[in-house]
Amino acid sequence: MKRLLYGGTVVNVFTGELERANVLIENEKIIGVGAYSPDDADVTEDITGKFVCPGFIDGHIHIESTMLTPSELAKLCMPHGTTAIVADPHEIANVCGMDGIRYMMESSDGIPMSVYFTLPSCVPATAFDEPGAVLKAEDIRPLYENKQVVGLAEMMNYPGVLLGDRDVYRKIGDAIERGKVVDGHAPFLSGKDLDKYILAGVTSDHECSTADEAIEKIRKGQWVMIRQGTAARNLTELLPLFDGAYSHRCILVTDDRHPADLMRDGHIDNIIRLAVKHGKSVITAIKMATIQAAQCFGLRFVGAVAPGYRADLLVLNDLNTVDIEDVYSRGEKVVQRKQMKAFDCPEIAEELCKTVHNSFHTKELTVADFHIAEKGNNCRVIEIIPGQLLTREQVCRIDWSKNNGIDTARDILKLAVIERHKNTGHIGLGFIKGIGIKNGAIASSVSHDSHNIIVIGSNDEDMVIAANHIRKNGGNVVVSAGKIIADMALPIAGLMTELSGEEIALANEKVRRAVYELGVPGDIEPFMNMAFVSLPVIPSLKMTPQGLVNVDKQERISLYCD
Amino acid sequence: MKRLLYGGTVVNVFTGELERANVLIENEKIIGVGAYSPDDADVTEDITGKFVCPGFIDGHIHIESTMLTPSELAKLCMPHGTTAIVADPHEIANVCGMDGIRYMMESSDGIPMSVYFTLPSCVPATAFDEPGAVLKAEDIRPLYENKQVVGLAEMMNYPGVLLGDRDVYRKIGDAIERGKVVDGHAPFLSGKDLDKYILAGVTSDHECSTADEAIEKIRKGQWVMIRQGTAARNLTELLPLFDGAYSHRCILVTDDRHPADLMRDGHIDNIIRLAVKHGKSVITAIKMATIQAAQCFGLRFVGAVAPGYRADLLVLNDLNTVDIEDVYSRGEKVVQRKQMKAFDCPEIAEELCKTVHNSFHTKELTVADFHIAEKGNNCRVIEIIPGQLLTREQVCRIDWSKNNGIDTARDILKLAVIERHKNTGHIGLGFIKGIGIKNGAIASSVSHDSHNIIVIGSNDEDMVIAANHIRKNGGNVVVSAGKIIADMALPIAGLMTELSGEEIALANEKVRRAVYELGVPGDIEPFMNMAFVSLPVIPSLKMTPQGLVNVDKQERISLYCD
Repeated sequence: MKRLLYGGTVVNVFTGELERANVLIENEKIIGVGAYSPDDADVTEDITGKFVCPGFIDGHIHIESTMLTPSELAKLCMPHGTTAIVADPHEIANVCGMDGIRYMMESSDGIPMSVYFTLPSCVPATAFDEPGAVLKAEDIRPLYENKQVVGLAEMMNYPGVLLGDRDVYRKIGDAIERGKVVDGHAPFLSGKDLDKYILAGVTSDHECSTADEAIEKIRKGQWVMIRQGTAARNLTELLPLFDGAYSHRCILVTDDRHPADLMRDGHIDNIIRLAVKHGKSVITAIKMATIQAAQCFGLRFVGAVAPGYRADLLVLNDLNTVDIEDVYSRGEKVVQRKQMKAFDCPEIAEELCKTVHNSFHTKELTVADFHIAEKGNNCRVIEIIPGQLLTREQVCRIDWSKNNGIDTARDILKLAVIERHKNTGHIGLGFIKGIGIKNGAIASSVSHDSHNIIVIGSNDEDMVIAANHIRKNGGNVVVSAGKIIADMALPIAGLMTELSGEEIALANEKVRRAVYELGVPGDIEPFMNMAFVSLPVIPSLKMTPQGLVNVDKQERISLYCD
Repeated sequence: MKRLLYGGTVVNVFTGELERANVLIENEKIIGVGAYSPDDADVTEDITGKFVCPGFIDGHIHIESTMLTPSELAKLCMPHGTTAIVADPHEIANVCGMDGIRYMMESSDGIPMSVYFTLPSCVPATAFDEPGAVLKAEDIRPLYENKQVVGLAEMMNYPGVLLGDRDVYRKIGDAIERGKVVDGHAPFLSGKDLDKYILAGVTSDHECSTADEAIEKIRKGQWVMIRQGTAARNLTELLPLFDGAYSHRCILVTDDRHPADLMRDGHIDNIIRLAVKHGKSVITAIKMATIQAAQCFGLRFVGAVAPGYRADLLVLNDLNTVDIEDVYSRGEKVVQRKQMKAFDCPEIAEELCKTVHNSFHTKELTVADFHIAEKGNNCRVIEIIPGQLLTREQVCRIDWSKNNGIDTARDILKLAVIERHKNTGHIGLGFIKGIGIKNGAIASSVSHDSHNIIVIGSNDEDMVIAANHIRKNGGNVVVSAGKIIADMALPIAGLMTELSGEEIALANEKVRRAVYELGVPGDIEPFMNMAFVSLPVIPSLKMTPQGLVNVDKQERISLYCD
């Protein structure tokens, strides 16, 4: 069946021109752009006065961070013009290993949004972590057979690259040998170290936080991914990249974006709107979001309105506001008058479903598990910095006389990270400042990157209830005075849910607000901070199931400093 | 061994900037660009005041048209900055089939210039032809295993594409499946036909002769190859492509360029100089000749001065005049102070050498072979148009009373095309106007695309001598009054020689001039015209071993029209 979109103006991403042209589609492809008439088609759509541009591509996203399945994410993103994403299933891989990656692939298969994958390069992110799986080069290698796999995901282990780590070089070599890309992740890397990192074969970076950093990376041949997520927002700093010769080596990505933000602000369309609001050319931004993303990943016949290209198309009422009316994916109209059409979710192998739905392997916890042995009076306490993922080390004199050292008056709360993958019984215990809970506990299974169970509380009883609740349901929970006052279940690997974007955003918001009933000050987002307290990659002091880690020195460190 | 080029200015093809930066090379790669000091290197080169840019890539060349082996071509081109070419061995494939292609691959293997191949898509160019081989999709398919093969060569058979020819689509499908490119050749194709051609998967074109034609092709997603060869020179017409958004979808190619031109004017450097002379940006032109050519063919880590890129580098005394001092290929200095260094020529399998050196399979010719049966008085005569490859049909009254119809007074000469591949005995005989020979004959084994023996003369005796000489030696010959007065042997497939560029240019010039001793007017280049008289693809009337072909109607036609 041939479908003609006639009367519109086409955004030509090759030339940057706006062209009056009709677009003829057959099956999955654009078969003609130009002076086609209704006689050339079986079905016609009058789009007079409207614009046609290629569908948007998010070049780097962790689906798990949206907490949604690929199907639900598609429902949220496609009305915003996203027809393809490049997903790095790094989070679920840390929990469920290869089965986690396979689950993501199967649950993306055949949905209206094209989901490409990069293979997680750093599982675990660090040797200090206790993840659900360790993925070596030989483990992930077979996945390159999958046609949706376009490369190796963000190589966070840049020290490993610089020091010549063998497994790191095997992983990179496997990707390059197969003609695949190697995505980078190297904040602030510069000069000779950057050269060495790029020399290894890393062709992109999404961690640029200043224009100078980005321009150096572009000069050295990398694609720069302009990231605008929920936590990390680099667009404003990177606006100079929209000018001149830099723009054609940039693409747009979200990395991590929460469903509430996706619903409220949008997805890639939101980044384009923001760029336009800052006075940048909408066509430059659209090129970044389409043909250039395709070029960055070597996706052929994707990202343009031209013969032979995949019919991933947007019909827009207005270009500068990116007001999207209809969306076509592989030639099918999937969004009509801003409404997503229903589609069948993919069937997933039963054993994969079982694995990801049974990802908590730890015994029922008791109060005794949370008891800290009193071995000294001066303890290293993790200090949260509001709005940042960094922490500081603060040495505090602990009063062991009551409540096992917890002192809400001084905002010294107990922190526990409970290994949950292999039932090792490892529980890291210590203290944290800056969260402000007065009466209760919060817990989560979203704790980067191993996603063990993390709990913060003002008393052991509430902490036990919170931790055991997460052990059963995954997700986030708020407990006070022995009662669950809000929770959001994330049954899939403790990271995702089958709920819709609306539902999970609502649940998330309830949980987020509930913490303030525990006495937390309004300017603190405890779940956000808590999710990174267990990641011994970001400075300075972090907690793992085996205890504290001094990130700067990359060594385990005692709770006690006397 | 690490080598540092210090003090120079680098042409950054990603940003279009000129950067003061030192370049560090190790083995085949650039390992650093920036503030490296002599301490970082084992060997240093002071290039203060000079420029560094990536080596040039000719995106489409028929090596056979230079008459040189790949080694000799490298010696000619590398001092002009060419470090890589994309060769289409179409001519030798028409003579020697798969062995011809393999010969070209083996004779390119390991020479200092990188030779990539596209696989001939149209052997023969037309069903009317009598080539040495017919190559189907299944014949060429195994060659994709060769890492130097980057795609399918110019798909001249655009009628086949438009009409859905199965073998054509198999060839295209094979390339695309393997992630390879499909080069185009579709002069004047436009609108819906162009859409259909591109839809098949053809991603480039080197036949654009006007800017409008090129811009349409760019808009529809094709790479446009700006061709400046010996016969076809499109640069002047295509100068608008150097401006604005078009330039980044263009590359530079020579297609066919004779050794004399290569020596006098240069190669890709010459095209860049011409563009600059016309006021275009040298950096825009360099980008076309380097990174964009690499992108067009999906060559990774080639075409830029950046970490991880292949160390194919030029050191230039001056940018605008493209004054090249040194050339590095895969990290080796191969041109020093404008002088090519000696290198070992590749060893080629003996049976391949034998095949290409024994490509004439036709019996010794006699005067009787050249006799035209007198079947009518009004004959169709091929009329040459000076400076063009087109011919016209002219009906002439033939006076059979003397010299078998030849009439030098009216410039009616005899023309013969002798099948030479399979000893079929087929000889196409007829008449030709516009060459102007008064006394003698010329013959050649360069007669597109099947490269049978073609002879034009004023008497059968000289024609026999000329034809038999070609049968033994290949190449071009000029005969008069029973004597060979000039010849240039092309023993390799009748197309190439092991001589150097200087030697073959000299021999070629001698032969070219000798024709004027036969009475040919000074404004006619008979060998140039003769080489295309046998190609029944270009209008209007052409000669094959089985007789005349009306190209416009695509049908064989009788010599006699009464």
